[in-house]
Formats: sequence, structure tokens, C-alpha cells
Amino acid sequence: MLVNDPGAAPQRDEKPIRLRRMRSFFVGGGLRRVAGQPVQSFRLTQGGAPRAIDVNGDHITGQMYVQEYLLEEPRHPWPILLWHGGGMSGVNWETTPDGRPGWLNYFLHAGFDVYVSDAMERGRSSWSPTYPLPPIFRTLKDGWDIFRMGPVEGYATDPASRKPFPGQQFPMEAYDTFATQWVPRWAEHEAETSAAYDALLEAVGRCVVIGHSQGGGFAFEAIRRRPRDVAAVVLLEPSGAPQKTEGMDAGLPPHLVVWGDFFAEHAGWRANRAVVDRYGQALREHGVEVDQLDLPAMGIHGNSHFPMMDRNAGDIAALVERWIVQHARRP
Amino acid sequence: MLVNDPGAAPQRDEKPIRLRRMRSFFVGGGLRRVAGQPVQSFRLTQGGAPRAIDVNGDHITGQMYVQEYLLEEPRHPWPILLWHGGGMSGVNWETTPDGRPGWLNYFLHAGFDVYVSDAMERGRSSWSPTYPLPPIFRTLKDGWDIFRMGPVEGYATDPASRKPFPGQQFPMEAYDTFATQWVPRWAEHEAETSAAYDALLEAVGRCVVIGHSQGGGFAFEAIRRRPRDVAAVVLLEPSGAPQKTEGMDAGLPPHLVVWGDFFAEHAGWRANRAVVDRYGQALREHGVEVDQLDLPAMGIHGNSHFPMMDRNAGDIAALVERWIVQHARRP
Repeated sequence: MLVNDPGAAPQRDEKPIRLRRMRSFFVGGGLRRVAGQPVQSFRLTQGGAPRAIDVNGDHITGQMYVQEYLLEEPRHPWPILLWHGGGMSGVNWETTPDGRPGWLNYFLHAGFDVYVSDAMERGRSSWSPTYPLPPIFRTLKDGWDIFRMGPVEGYATDPASRKPFPGQQFPMEAYDTFATQWVPRWAEHEAETSAAYDALLEAVGRCVVIGHSQGGGFAFEAIRRRPRDVAAVVLLEPSGAPQKTEGMDAGLPPHLVVWGDFFAEHAGWRANRAVVDRYGQALREHGVEVDQLDLPAMGIHGNSHFPMMDRNAGDIAALVERWIVQHARRP
Repeated sequence: MLVNDPGAAPQRDEKPIRLRRMRSFFVGGGLRRVAGQPVQSFRLTQGGAPRAIDVNGDHITGQMYVQEYLLEEPRHPWPILLWHGGGMSGVNWETTPDGRPGWLNYFLHAGFDVYVSDAMERGRSSWSPTYPLPPIFRTLKDGWDIFRMGPVEGYATDPASRKPFPGQQFPMEAYDTFATQWVPRWAEHEAETSAAYDALLEAVGRCVVIGHSQGGGFAFEAIRRRPRDVAAVVLLEPSGAPQKTEGMDAGLPPHLVVWGDFFAEHAGWRANRAVVDRYGQALREHGVEVDQLDLPAMGIHGNSHFPMMDRNAGDIAALVERWIVQHARRP
């Protein structure tokens, strides 16, 4: 079964994108030595003889891949950094699974320079034989549940038999195409991942961070370490928040937390949200500006855990854009 | 040791890039079921409790990630498809490791629409728990040898102690930064990888393919299956060629093979090249146009296995561009 059909999804209403610079680079990472591993043997060319492959030696690990899109005529003083969530890559911010322009294009059209990164270990950031733990793969059913597509018993292998939540805004016909974006993740890589995000903030300087899900958790932490680099931060469905409040002070930039729908249907997400709510309250008590877009409370119903891919992704982006322009600190 | 310093490499002589469309999509891939694997347990949030992770269930596998860059004003009738080599991703065609614009930018500036892909299993194309074999990681020393940076005994962990070939055109100060681009590969995935490239040719239609190293081998094969989709093919340091000549005919598009330097120093590469030479000869005998750029024979010395990253990458691109414009079949 082919799950991808690029031809079926022409993009409409596209405006040109005019860039003064488009490049990619890596931040972070270092050289590590692997030793004591057995030599293996693989056939690397069709019909060829097996070849000895020795992994022992020097490898680079911990690096993060970044794409930079700088406009010919930016209209805002801050670039936007788009940080994806767990088991994902920067592709999350590009074209939506059903073929509409994603938030990368939205914010370029809105006049912002944009940086898209793949978190350490994922996508083009690569991964390394130095990892002590095995990779974690998410099943389509797991994603269905965790991303609040529908009740867990509503998942079926056959797309025609799936039962999403009523009023679901995610383009369900493209759910399997969405799953082609998923990448493995690893446990216990928080310190290295954070180090790479810090290196990115250092490389870019004053910016606005939009972090989704696990990327929201990384954003909460990163701005506490580098508050001067961040003019504002948007936490899109953050999956967690720091436990510690020591060192929290009014010097932190404004925060915006964005929540979709279907929390009543998901106890795990209610628990995640309670953690974030407590952290937001602690921020406020320390004099930090913390705003919230509770979409259903605003009359915007049906958003999944991926508002940047939902059918109303452009409307959500517009709300986020307006908040940034009104609240981000001016240089 | 930090190996990446994006700030140190400003790009000069950049011209704006004006796009009528920029998007990404996936081609190929299908749903496969994993069963019978043990449930594992991982800590997915810092300080959180371990969680059961069950890989059994539905996964997508075999997909390929593609980035599409369409110019506001293309000056040629064919888009260019850039296919990277083994253990690499589409990043190979973006900014060079020492921070110069790569061939993606070069060919956009030259007036071609461009598609960059990550081969199945690599980079943003992700990989899958359905693979029967383990991943293969390349050491920095292995790359040093196989990419013809220098004699194998010239590799050292300390960059200052490395001894490349005299006159080496690869930006050696950025060798470790180059290694941050490397991704794992797998053996025996040729059929699935080829199926994804075929799906890409079907999605794009008439185009010019530039395939590097293993990507050159895939290009040799793909154009035999879909000769009408390819107006010309450039094989940049191809690491192999098809064994079979059955079905070869004069309907195949023009081929250009490009070779760098230091073959006298590398028996393995002389053997690879002999395979390609024999295949090129067979193509010619069947009436196919096969040209060659033997760079040292043209007085261009010092190119590594990665001419698109070497210091003279722009000169090599210009030679390739001229050949394409003169030889690619017009619609």
C-alpha cells in the first residue's frame, strides 16, 4: 500500500518566497571514540561479496541540524525558531501531511526569518553508535492515542475503519502520510539535546522560539538558561515543564501556551497539562508574563496535538503571530 | 570538543533565491506490522517514572523524504534531482561543511528547479523497526579512506595531525563538521530504495538526475526503468553500475560521468571505476551517449570523492551545468 501521493495535493494560494539567504548548518556535537565492539560483515553492493564493517573508532555525536531561511525583506526584528516534538523532525513545520503549506511557509510569508531544526538524534541530525540505549519506535496506534486523534479503540489498521473524535480538525485522510514523518527517539538524551538547543540560541541570538510538545519542554528550560537570547516563547501543546522553580525571575521573556481540544477524553494529557499549569502559575508569581490560548474556550473546537497540521492551522498561526508581534520584547 | 561553528563561516557572494513554491513531501512507503517483540521500559521524561514501550503494531516503512524548490523564473525546462550517496542525506547538497553555498543553491541560481531527497532509511526519511539487519556506522577514519581524503595512515583523531593527499581540494579544516552530516546505512535495502526513487521520478516527471556515489548507482538503474522521465543523467563519482546489460538500448538518455583525483592512490576506487567504465562502454555500444569529465585529465587536480564540497565545487558545477544545457533532451 502506497501511503504518499504528492501529486494529489497541489498547494493553492501560494505566494512567492524571496530569500536573501538559504543555508543549513550544524550546532553542537563532538568526537567520541567507540571501542571493543565486534567486527561485523555485510553485503554493501547488490550481488557483491560481504565486507567487514568495523564500528570501532571515532564518531561525531550530539550534533543538531538547522535550516536557515532569511527573507530579502523581513518585517520583524526577531527570527522564529521552530522546535518539533518527540519522535519527530523539522518536517513537522513544512508542508502538512495533506499538502498545505506549513508553519515554516506561514511565518516566512508573515515576514519573519525562520530556523527549522531536527533535534539531536533525529532526522538529518543523525544518531550515533555511542548511544547506550536502543531506539524507541512509535506505532500508528500509539500516535493515534497520544496525539489525541481519537479514542484508542477507534484506531484500526484500515484507514476506512478508524473512528476519530467527532469534529477532529486533523486531516485524518493523511494520518498514514503523517506517520511517514515519524522518526525513532531515545530515552535519557535530555542533557545532550538541551546542549544543542543552547548552541543554536547562541548561534542565532535574539529570537522567538516556538516549541511543540517535547520541544515545548526543551524551550521552557532553554529560555531559563539563556533568557537574553529569547524575546518571547510559544509553547504549543507542551508535554511537560521543568520541575524546579529556583532561579526563576521576572527577567524571563513572555510565554504563550497553546492548547487544542479533547483533553476531557485523555487522562494522560490532563496530567501533562496540570504540570504545565503549575509551572505557568509559578512563572506568574515570579512576575513573568504568561498568556494562554485555550482554543476550545475561545470557541475553536477540534484541534489535535498538532495544531500546526490541523485544518485550521493557518488560523492558529495567525493567533500566535498576533501574540508575538504584541508581546515579544523589542531589541 | 565542539566541531561546528556556523558563525565562523559567513557565506559571501550570495544572490537572492526567489521561489514560487517551497514544500516537502514523501514518496513511496507502506504500512507494515511488527509482532512478537518484547515490551520494553524507558524513562521518557527527566525524573519521570519508566514507561512501557510496545513496538508491536503498525509502522510505516520504505518512504523517502523530498524537498521541492521551484523558482519564480526557471530558465530551463528540466528540474534537477540531487541524489546523495551511501551513509549520507540530502544535506550533502546544501551548504558545504566550511560554509559555502552548495550545489542546491548553485543550480537554483543557474535557473533550475531543484529537488533534494534523503534516500530511504536516512535522515528525514526515517527508518523502521521492520529492518532485519542492524545499522552500519562509518568511522571518521573509514570515511577518510573511502572518500579519498588521504592515505589511510594519514588519519589521526587530532585534526592538526592529519595528513591529507597533497593538493587535496576538500576543505580539510571542516572534515569533522562534514562528519556531522553522516547518517547510518543498512545493507540489502536496494530494492526498497530503488522503488522510492522510481516513485520520485513518477511524481516529478521529466527531469535531470545528478547522482553521487551510491546515488549514482541508483541513478544508473532508475533511468533504465524509467528512461522517458530522465532527460539526462550525471553520475558524480558513481560507486558502482548495474551488472546486467539486457534491455539496454539507444532510448536511454545521455550520461555524464565525473571523476575526481587520487585514483592512483586507491585500489578499491580503481576497481569501482573499472566497473563503471565497462558499463559505460556497454552503453556506448548500444548507441547511448556517454561523456566523461576526468577532472585531472582536464588539468583540474586534487578533487576528493565529494566534488560538490571541494574548494572548486563551483567550477565543477559549472562544467556539469554546461554539459546539461548542451546534452539534456529537450521536451
